[in-house]
Amino acid sequence: MKQGYGDHKDAVQKRLRRIEGQVRGIQRMVDEDRYCIEILEQVSAASRALRAVALELLEDHMAHCVAEAVRDGGEEASAKLDEAAAAIARLVRS
Amino acid sequence: MKQGYGDHKDAVQKRLRRIEGQVRGIQRMVDEDRYCIEILEQVSAASRALRAVALELLEDHMAHCVAEAVRDGGEEASAKLDEAAAAIARLVRS
Amino acid sequence: MKQGYGDHKDAVQKRLRRIEGQVRGIQRMVDEDRYCIEILEQVSAASRALRAVALELLEDHMAHCVAEAVRDGGEEASAKLDEAAAAIARLVRS
Amino acid sequence: MKQGYGDHKDAVQKRLRRIEGQVRGIQRMVDEDRYCIEILEQVSAASRALRAVALELLEDHMAHCVAEAVRDGGEEASAKLDEAAAAIARLVRS
Repeated sequence: MKQGYGDHKDAVQKRLRRIEGQVRGIQRMVDEDRYCIEILEQVSAASRALRAVALELLEDHMAHCVAEAVRDGGEEASAKLDEAAAAIARLVRS
Repeated sequence: MKQGYGDHKDAVQKRLRRIEGQVRGIQRMVDEDRYCIEILEQVSAASRALRAVALELLEDHMAHCVAEAVRDGGEEASAKLDEAAAAIARLVRS
Repeated sequence: MKQGYGDHKDAVQKRLRRIEGQVRGIQRMVDEDRYCIEILEQVSAASRALRAVALELLEDHMAHCVAEAVRDGGEEASAKLDEAAAAIARLVRS
Repeated sequence: MKQGYGDHKDAVQKRLRRIEGQVRGIQRMVDEDRYCIEILEQVSAASRALRAVALELLEDHMAHCVAEAVRDGGEEASAKLDEAAAAIARLVRS
């Protein structure tokens, strides 16, 4: 089934591959005994990139899955809203 | 030169490899059109794991590089403290 | 007009008054030259409490304002979803 | 005893009073049934301001208390470094 991120699948995958590359780059830096602060900078950058992906997934999810459930009405709508709120809370606390 | 994380190099690499695996797992989930919320959970988990690595690197850095510079005294000490504070600020905001 | 948080107004105000008290308590600690780390603990606690209020307001907003706009349909629905996504992004980055 | 923030006490108090004012302003907005998203913006702003105070306190603490303990050496130094690392972890997770 097509998901909320369906229309941005390529863009999301591209971002994730870049993050994977960042994490591999960090491993290389550790391997080469690079300076802690330089490594920390790359970890912060990867962390920011992950959050950006999360926000994009969340936005797509709300604009499609949640919106659709709300339009269809019924219990499903309120379940979807609760589920999204819980995902947001996890993200804010991650 | 041995860095602050020198004594934990294997542990840090192990965590980073696990995070790389998490990011690859997320790509697979996107590829398989898995549900947005499930993917978001994995992104939040990878984000938490990255922050945990950052905190470990920072702790090692302070306990070794910063502490050493402070013991040696002089301008280097204050430069290292400023540098660490800037890295912490970047991490808190990432 | 009644807002999303309308049914929890008293609870939200109670939390905000408690946070105001925490911030005043921190000022008192600074005034009494209390130890930095103790003060930092209180600042982290107040910060966590503020985020909890934000998450509650957001949840209420989605369950009421956004859901209503989506049910009514039209351009308003998509505007509300974009607006909520922007608020979530600000919160995650705060 | 003078603390790490001793030289910035007035500046820190000024920031804290402003944050207290922001939190009171948010209570007023709730009281006036202002729009959720406007309130959320103010909560995010107060949250950012609190983190900025935390970062300043932490920087002062490291530049003074931690640096001093490290210069004095002994067990106190390593205790102070552990304590600072724990405070940073709490802040990052708050």
